[in-house]
Amino acid sequence: MADDDRSGRFDHLLAGTVRDQLGGSPYGAWRSVRDADAVQLSFGFPFPESFPNDELAAATAAVLEREGDRVMQYGGGEYADALSDFVADRASDRGIDLESRTVSLTNGATDGLATVCDAFLEPGDTVVVGAPTFMGALTVFRSYGVELESVPVDESGLDVAALEDRLASMRERGLATPTMVYVVPNFQNPTGATLPEDRRERLVALAEEYDFVVLEDDAYGELRYDGDPVPPLAALDERGRVVRVGTFSKTIGPGVRTGWVIADEELEEPLKIASAGGTNTFTQSVVARYAEDGRYDANVRDLREAYGERRDEALASLSRHMPADADWTDPDGGFFVWITLPEGIDAERLLETAAEEGVVYLPGSMFYPEEGGENCLRISFSYVDSEAFDRGIEALGRAVRGAMADQ
Amino acid sequence: MADDDRSGRFDHLLAGTVRDQLGGSPYGAWRSVRDADAVQLSFGFPFPESFPNDELAAATAAVLEREGDRVMQYGGGEYADALSDFVADRASDRGIDLESRTVSLTNGATDGLATVCDAFLEPGDTVVVGAPTFMGALTVFRSYGVELESVPVDESGLDVAALEDRLASMRERGLATPTMVYVVPNFQNPTGATLPEDRRERLVALAEEYDFVVLEDDAYGELRYDGDPVPPLAALDERGRVVRVGTFSKTIGPGVRTGWVIADEELEEPLKIASAGGTNTFTQSVVARYAEDGRYDANVRDLREAYGERRDEALASLSRHMPADADWTDPDGGFFVWITLPEGIDAERLLETAAEEGVVYLPGSMFYPEEGGENCLRISFSYVDSEAFDRGIEALGRAVRGAMADQ
Repeated sequence: MADDDRSGRFDHLLAGTVRDQLGGSPYGAWRSVRDADAVQLSFGFPFPESFPNDELAAATAAVLEREGDRVMQYGGGEYADALSDFVADRASDRGIDLESRTVSLTNGATDGLATVCDAFLEPGDTVVVGAPTFMGALTVFRSYGVELESVPVDESGLDVAALEDRLASMRERGLATPTMVYVVPNFQNPTGATLPEDRRERLVALAEEYDFVVLEDDAYGELRYDGDPVPPLAALDERGRVVRVGTFSKTIGPGVRTGWVIADEELEEPLKIASAGGTNTFTQSVVARYAEDGRYDANVRDLREAYGERRDEALASLSRHMPADADWTDPDGGFFVWITLPEGIDAERLLETAAEEGVVYLPGSMFYPEEGGENCLRISFSYVDSEAFDRGIEALGRAVRGAMADQ
Repeated sequence: MADDDRSGRFDHLLAGTVRDQLGGSPYGAWRSVRDADAVQLSFGFPFPESFPNDELAAATAAVLEREGDRVMQYGGGEYADALSDFVADRASDRGIDLESRTVSLTNGATDGLATVCDAFLEPGDTVVVGAPTFMGALTVFRSYGVELESVPVDESGLDVAALEDRLASMRERGLATPTMVYVVPNFQNPTGATLPEDRRERLVALAEEYDFVVLEDDAYGELRYDGDPVPPLAALDERGRVVRVGTFSKTIGPGVRTGWVIADEELEEPLKIASAGGTNTFTQSVVARYAEDGRYDANVRDLREAYGERRDEALASLSRHMPADADWTDPDGGFFVWITLPEGIDAERLLETAAEEGVVYLPGSMFYPEEGGENCLRISFSYVDSEAFDRGIEALGRAVRGAMADQ
């Protein structure tokens, strides 16, 4: 029944934004080397021992026992409701005013980003992102047919002064200002940079001045290993301009696929309209039960300690094995270190050699909306143990030295 | 900090399709009476004792024990993978050729519908739906800014001959033919009607002739209480025109929020691009483990028996209590009966009286893309026990007789 060549039979029926992305997976470079016997530093996977499995099994049994007629029902039971309150309470603890805001649970952080985009974005709108920024968010934005404008990211995160210049120039030239500015304020993916409070304040003020929404993606905010927390943008925002997205993926496990959006109460209805279908009340109930009695907080404390050690060991490995001409960031939290290789070394081209040497990573160019980051790469210290990590960085050092010798 | 009247502050920033839906919840009429002390016949909720809680708790413990390092990880483990195979095997059993098709797991059926819409729909496209049809699908379609064309639904479901006339007329007038035709072939929501095989064959042929995609929503297909199964549209389709959506919401529980899309292998990449974010590998693993050893099939057999009895009792209640001038459908499966009241009785206006009498339902107009169904209503026999159901129908009978007397 199948034709020999069916390729493209449905292309003319597809939405244009989907058609434009065919054949261009952002994970392409990684996919090609995924089977290699190489140390995996590509992705921000939590380490395998980090999942609180026994407690989650016990929580599952408990909620099914206690409200078995409702856990699996549409809407869920009291535990599913309690999870929103739990998220709200923790946001309150971080200084966010929950009087004028509501919590909407989502099927993970990316679903949260997509829901916010569904609510606000139309083809032709402009979205500002940092360069570099989380490639998953770039993929989401691209699916809305919007214009992506990029602003540099430096060692303190999004360059808000550069954004301000851009906005002023847009207004001066009579161009439409952005609908949305996307920012990962803490331990940014991919650089690990944290936006200081003054930049946050300025960004929130600009949102009001130039009439845009700030999409604050704080997937890593709870995983700080050094220094004092900086207030969330939502805590600095008195006008409801900041829409904040969070997730349990890094603090319980990606498999729970549960996140949230905290937004001005006036956005509750638009976000509800924008979110297609319900969320997973089974998982929400299990997480809420698990989070009772401070177990979630205790787990986050344990994770901070474990990831903090990994971060220290990662930086030590880099100092040991990388050539002097390479540079890298020193993140206060999160999962990632961003490495800048000597000019002229292309991290995407280097990937194959690196895999042969025994390590894989994500090339920096993947995190740029347009050109950029060719001599950069992202590694994660979250997944492999420190011995494997060190072996991986040793391999990376060999690959980089080889490329430098060939220059 | 909050203004006294903040209403509409963000409206100008919202996407137009979202702005257009503000204030117009399809559940509005139901919401206003949800707190009434009335028998709940509005929604297709599974009955509370139907959930296999003990087995799900055991499955959770087992998967976390057996592959605890992967269940909660990105991508999941072997059980999460196994669920796609399980879905594929069951589709094969129903005559669907899985050689040329792939299974994509989703966060429930509505997420599946939205993913398919994301892949295909653009503002201005035309989507054909039955009138009446599932209101949740109407809500999804409306969010894409598409034109909704309706074709009548009769006692055998979608009137495919009427669709053919419409398509021929569109072509003749030089109008763009639809991108998609949406159909619930088995025990249709809301009428309970099942599309006969000849209509299915014709619909699949029309899809090829007029170059559209058939979105087959088979949420209820496994819950047949009488008669022989009719082949799924996907089983009659040799050209990959049918995209099939299913769910575990009715056969395990809505809380698992896990569904699937079965589509031509050429659509795997577009659907992946269209689906924002991952799916819930924790739940998928639990469901896959639960489904091992025929437990899912045994559960479906039990559900068929239990719902079949409910259906019989529901029809008996209707015969006992409804006035002779009312008419209702006699579904072979699913959760719903569609009631047609005497002309001139408005089911939406009647709802308040009915709630006072002691029953709530969904007004028929909710299931029409435009006008229609004013004297119709949908009830579900899936949720309340037969005693409560009977009390509810008795109340409905009183309300209808009262309205007839007032005419």
